[in-house]
Amino acid sequence: MQIVPPALEKLIADLNRLPGIGKKTATRLALHILRRPAAEARELSRDLAELHNSIRLCANCFIFSSTDPCAICADPRRQADQICVVEEPGDLMALEKTGVYKGHYHILHGVLAPMDGIGPEEIKIRELLERIHRGGIDEVIIATSSTVPGEATAAYLARLLQEEPVKTSRLACGIPMGMDIKYADEVTLARALQARQSTGGVREKR
Amino acid sequence: MQIVPPALEKLIADLNRLPGIGKKTATRLALHILRRPAAEARELSRDLAELHNSIRLCANCFIFSSTDPCAICADPRRQADQICVVEEPGDLMALEKTGVYKGHYHILHGVLAPMDGIGPEEIKIRELLERIHRGGIDEVIIATSSTVPGEATAAYLARLLQEEPVKTSRLACGIPMGMDIKYADEVTLARALQARQSTGGVREKR
Repeated sequence: MQIVPPALEKLIADLNRLPGIGKKTATRLALHILRRPAAEARELSRDLAELHNSIRLCANCFIFSSTDPCAICADPRRQADQICVVEEPGDLMALEKTGVYKGHYHILHGVLAPMDGIGPEEIKIRELLERIHRGGIDEVIIATSSTVPGEATAAYLARLLQEEPVKTSRLACGIPMGMDIKYADEVTLARALQARQSTGGVREKR
Repeated sequence: MQIVPPALEKLIADLNRLPGIGKKTATRLALHILRRPAAEARELSRDLAELHNSIRLCANCFIFSSTDPCAICADPRRQADQICVVEEPGDLMALEKTGVYKGHYHILHGVLAPMDGIGPEEIKIRELLERIHRGGIDEVIIATSSTVPGEATAAYLARLLQEEPVKTSRLACGIPMGMDIKYADEVTLARALQARQSTGGVREKR
């Protein structure tokens, strides 16, 4: 017997396809939307329909943007000679929230994952090299995640960029703020030791 | 500076209003939808717009349904003299999945929460009494959650139904399947003890 109305069933299936949303959460969300006024569902519906229409990729850095070039590439106050290479738009948002970085970005839209058939051609690496070849780039900061595919992508990029006339750097790896050293994993701890930084005040050795 | 395109920002805000979806999850979902083909976003959009149009409340049991009366109320194979009272449609779905219950339902669409201004008039209690007064009801099973408001609502209903010519019962409270007794909270354990069930095989006392 069909207990769940088809329209509700359909919405649950749609929501279930989103990442991290299982069948139970999808059901809970769909029932919540159903209980709220129809106007709210219509608003969400309208905004979803609008999404792809009004957003494109910046042809320079491949960030999602309603303008091309995007607000960052078009901003004269940002340093155009520095490029920070990230995997995804979400990484860029996280970096922007720090307020520390004043350069441009380059979104790879993925990481190297040979097992999934994602090689250098599938992500925006060629476009990064083209940007460098057009000139005006002084430093490339590789800010892929410190996951296995993120590290592999960083290593690949670092080797590739050795051939180019740019400085390259990688985000520091170490103990995150607020973490108790005894709970840090050994790889992080080993890297934090290797990359230890001088705190000044060195006494003369006798 | 506007880094996040307005259309994306808007969708993130919409998703953020859903229960259990924080700002970070909303951002992740919105970026996922943006990365997937536009057709998927349009499908979700269409299904959301359709939701409230095609679903109404069954006038008898107040379940969400595309028909009135709903499939359960209209089904001659279900026992019409038994009503299971639940808080929300999600509870009904959980009970239906057991396949054990063959009666009708009554959805309260909420629980008593005087602090939030939700009294008996705000949930479908009057409608339950009307159903009972119309006759043909033999048993009412109170299946509100065993949370504080759920228990309060159950107690209120039990007292109210004492005046009515119906049997009333409440879902059993006890140790859930697969739970280690040493991890059960003391209230559950105390109730499980009080409601202990004979396993048969009593030897004659000498």
